[in-house]
Amino acid sequence: MTILSCIADLPLIDHHCHGLIRTDLDRTSFEELLTEADTVSPLGTTLFDSTIGLAVRRWCAPILDLPAHAPAEDYLARRAELGATEVNRRLVATTGATDLLVDSGFRPEQLTTTDELATLTGIRTHEIVRLESLAESVLHDDGDFAMNCAEALAKRNAIGCKSVAAYRVGLRLSGVRPTDAEVRTAVDRWRQSGNPRLADETLHRYLVWLAIENRLPVQFHVGYGDADLDLHECDPLLLTGLLRATEHTGVPIMLLHNYPYQRQAGYLAQVFQHVFVDVGLATHHAGFRGPGLIAELLEIAPFGKVLYSSDSFGLAEHYLLGALLFRRGLSDFLATGITEDALTPEDAGHIARLIGHQNARRLYQFTPGDVLS
Amino acid sequence: MTILSCIADLPLIDHHCHGLIRTDLDRTSFEELLTEADTVSPLGTTLFDSTIGLAVRRWCAPILDLPAHAPAEDYLARRAELGATEVNRRLVATTGATDLLVDSGFRPEQLTTTDELATLTGIRTHEIVRLESLAESVLHDDGDFAMNCAEALAKRNAIGCKSVAAYRVGLRLSGVRPTDAEVRTAVDRWRQSGNPRLADETLHRYLVWLAIENRLPVQFHVGYGDADLDLHECDPLLLTGLLRATEHTGVPIMLLHNYPYQRQAGYLAQVFQHVFVDVGLATHHAGFRGPGLIAELLEIAPFGKVLYSSDSFGLAEHYLLGALLFRRGLSDFLATGITEDALTPEDAGHIARLIGHQNARRLYQFTPGDVLS
Amino acid sequence: MTILSCIADLPLIDHHCHGLIRTDLDRTSFEELLTEADTVSPLGTTLFDSTIGLAVRRWCAPILDLPAHAPAEDYLARRAELGATEVNRRLVATTGATDLLVDSGFRPEQLTTTDELATLTGIRTHEIVRLESLAESVLHDDGDFAMNCAEALAKRNAIGCKSVAAYRVGLRLSGVRPTDAEVRTAVDRWRQSGNPRLADETLHRYLVWLAIENRLPVQFHVGYGDADLDLHECDPLLLTGLLRATEHTGVPIMLLHNYPYQRQAGYLAQVFQHVFVDVGLATHHAGFRGPGLIAELLEIAPFGKVLYSSDSFGLAEHYLLGALLFRRGLSDFLATGITEDALTPEDAGHIARLIGHQNARRLYQFTPGDVLS
Repeated sequence: MTILSCIADLPLIDHHCHGLIRTDLDRTSFEELLTEADTVSPLGTTLFDSTIGLAVRRWCAPILDLPAHAPAEDYLARRAELGATEVNRRLVATTGATDLLVDSGFRPEQLTTTDELATLTGIRTHEIVRLESLAESVLHDDGDFAMNCAEALAKRNAIGCKSVAAYRVGLRLSGVRPTDAEVRTAVDRWRQSGNPRLADETLHRYLVWLAIENRLPVQFHVGYGDADLDLHECDPLLLTGLLRATEHTGVPIMLLHNYPYQRQAGYLAQVFQHVFVDVGLATHHAGFRGPGLIAELLEIAPFGKVLYSSDSFGLAEHYLLGALLFRRGLSDFLATGITEDALTPEDAGHIARLIGHQNARRLYQFTPGDVLS
Repeated sequence: MTILSCIADLPLIDHHCHGLIRTDLDRTSFEELLTEADTVSPLGTTLFDSTIGLAVRRWCAPILDLPAHAPAEDYLARRAELGATEVNRRLVATTGATDLLVDSGFRPEQLTTTDELATLTGIRTHEIVRLESLAESVLHDDGDFAMNCAEALAKRNAIGCKSVAAYRVGLRLSGVRPTDAEVRTAVDRWRQSGNPRLADETLHRYLVWLAIENRLPVQFHVGYGDADLDLHECDPLLLTGLLRATEHTGVPIMLLHNYPYQRQAGYLAQVFQHVFVDVGLATHHAGFRGPGLIAELLEIAPFGKVLYSSDSFGLAEHYLLGALLFRRGLSDFLATGITEDALTPEDAGHIARLIGHQNARRLYQFTPGDVLS
Repeated sequence: MTILSCIADLPLIDHHCHGLIRTDLDRTSFEELLTEADTVSPLGTTLFDSTIGLAVRRWCAPILDLPAHAPAEDYLARRAELGATEVNRRLVATTGATDLLVDSGFRPEQLTTTDELATLTGIRTHEIVRLESLAESVLHDDGDFAMNCAEALAKRNAIGCKSVAAYRVGLRLSGVRPTDAEVRTAVDRWRQSGNPRLADETLHRYLVWLAIENRLPVQFHVGYGDADLDLHECDPLLLTGLLRATEHTGVPIMLLHNYPYQRQAGYLAQVFQHVFVDVGLATHHAGFRGPGLIAELLEIAPFGKVLYSSDSFGLAEHYLLGALLFRRGLSDFLATGITEDALTPEDAGHIARLIGHQNARRLYQFTPGDVLS
């Protein structure tokens, strides 16, 4: 497969990713970060026995000076030899990303900060505030919870927010903005529970409205994730009521990942003005099968409503594979269209630029002067 | 891609479509009819940036004497120059349809009537009664509501009915035929609501039984549609109870569209004797990706249980693309089978005729004497 | 399509199948066993008009000395001429299976027993106990129901159990092990109902725990089946709570079939240590379209978590097609990977052995000494 030239050099805005592990990893720790499995099952085999495992050996090994398809043990030995910093630097350098929008709210103690990531990679980074982490950080502060959330958000200089309601209560969120009294009651209930972790439909919903009222695009984790979530409660269609209620605001809602509900997500992107979608995470977790997922997303999602994200987390291998397999998938989709005479090479270039960076550029408020093509 | 000769000239019965807009359209009005989006999003780009937009430029432009892939503005200018009547005539003439089964109950004031459509296109048209429109038209008539519905239906000379329960209450319909008393109670509730629009599970269900008792095939809108519906309430599997309850009647139930639940629909077509399916609407809304959907439908749906529909609405472009992309999809499926030696060219011809027109011919009661191959 | 050599001769463990019909079949009886439809619809056409019908004519006919693609009537005539025993023997001999794990609890009066199947085919057979049949067989026995179930299970020398909760109450099973008192109450309710057929969430759940406490792998019917089930209640994700509650036991849970939810099943196999999956039944029921389903399952399911099953029932044609279309599907997946340079031929052989037999060998406790490669 040859990647279309309009895509090989396409600048990418990765609108959802996380920091990198700074330390060297033994085999178990590496495998635990490789897929969404928490641990390597004693009943299964190595997690290198997977499409993403094959992809690491195929595509990442050469960047570490190994032959393509090097065995897992060789790969891990060479990784340790080079050290985490050099590995991270080399792998991320392959992505062709100009901007990383970083959700720094998950396991921050283990990962590079947003600034460290910029320094390490030489790529501009931008802050996405994880709403639940923000709320958890002010739960026991004096004064009004809602006001404290608003103030904490204002201090963060974020260009967007992210909700992980999917992980806490699922996506059956009501469309109604909760009243101040409802928020107070829910906060009291939360405080009394003694649980530091937010999991309350009213408050997840409140936080989404807080972001919207600050005109910050809201990202939702949707679909595929780890065993902490109930995947059948993470179908993006469950957000339909909330989407209907928020459309008039004109604030973009970004549905992340979506696998295996990418077609459902494409539908929402078509029929709601403010909905945007990607199929990040799954694209590279499915290895050489990932590119086909992009074609499913693009069946009915308008090209002006689709973005790129990698959802890289911890391993720099995710950065490389996310970008590479996205490029291959988008290239396959467009090259097929050209071969079938369904679109022209000029159309392909236009669509690639929209999805690769123009849509993100239009929707997130980057610093003025910082203009891409 | 070459279309198999047995499909290039295959007569099609389009068992679900709507009338055409009679007037010329500006760009906004055209885009609003192009996809299921109500409006062009100020946050997105033009809706020509979509698989169906590409398909219009590729396939419809040459019929209006433009080069393939003409820019959208050129296309719309030429469309205006030719005028709606000529455009409608030219585009529909490409379909190779012998019969159109027309649901005339949605926005009738904007569209050609069933008779006008026949005159304009020279293709036989047949009436499908939209059950909810029928009920709404007699809501305030004197006398018994149920009897009024039955009389109104009898006057229509319809060859089938259509339910849009999906748009009003979703598809979780009970299998029980409502009693006369239940219908009366529901009608009283509806009248008192002051809402002219029917949205009452009891009454949608009653209307389905009314059609069945008149031995008229019942079409259901299933799956993909505009933002008015909750797509997760439109999975065809939610009809399982009703299908189980109506199987003994032997009256065909037609599940329309079904995207993205085409595999679920194929399952129902296999296991219920009276269930028939199509993947209209999505086939052409997905442009060059649409043909693949037909293959998913045909994984387990028996070939004797699958029909063709375009669900064309308003734009004659839908007629052209619906037929063309159906032909390409069915041809791909069968040509792949021939290439893999999974079926013979004679099998391909037989399957094409079943799906193209023979199944529809067998199930709907067309005028006697009006016989296809 | 050429099948990779590492797959053409791959020994298969068929970890879920049923016995064969011993008697000759007329056309109606044959068609009734061909798909999941109970009967041939008077509104449809023959069930040979389906992907599996085409596959029987293409692949089974030559084994009965007919040309490929022989007409259905010729096929059935030749089948009758040879007689059921010879047909069964010939078709099963093509599978390359070394071991059959047989669920003998469904319609046992019509089918070969597990021992008869071994004698007829010359392939080792192993017993899988259908939990619901076990419970039904002791319902009216004296003494404690739970103890009677445990004793009956111990007598069976089974290497695994199977739950058909999907067919009786759906898969929304709680994760909590029922108390003895809850079991007794449920049994009383069942006895009083007079219904010999078990359909009680508490008891299906109890039986699963009984198997787990005996450290027997538990197979679940998931997804595609006949009209007796509500398919939307058979999404494997509905088992998430039960999977979370049973993970610590380390007893394998096998999700069978899964169509059209194979991607959802792949997710569960990745994130839960004890979950294993297949896409049996659908693989051959979708005929030449079946191989593509395997690729969807393998998008994110680790290769150490995927097994082979045919779910053959009644017709020996299912045995041939199950094995053949599985081999073609796995070969397609791996050959595509080799062509795209995503994996090496050595990787392909390793993955094929895992899925073909090594995973099953590791998870089920076959007789010691009975060792495959």
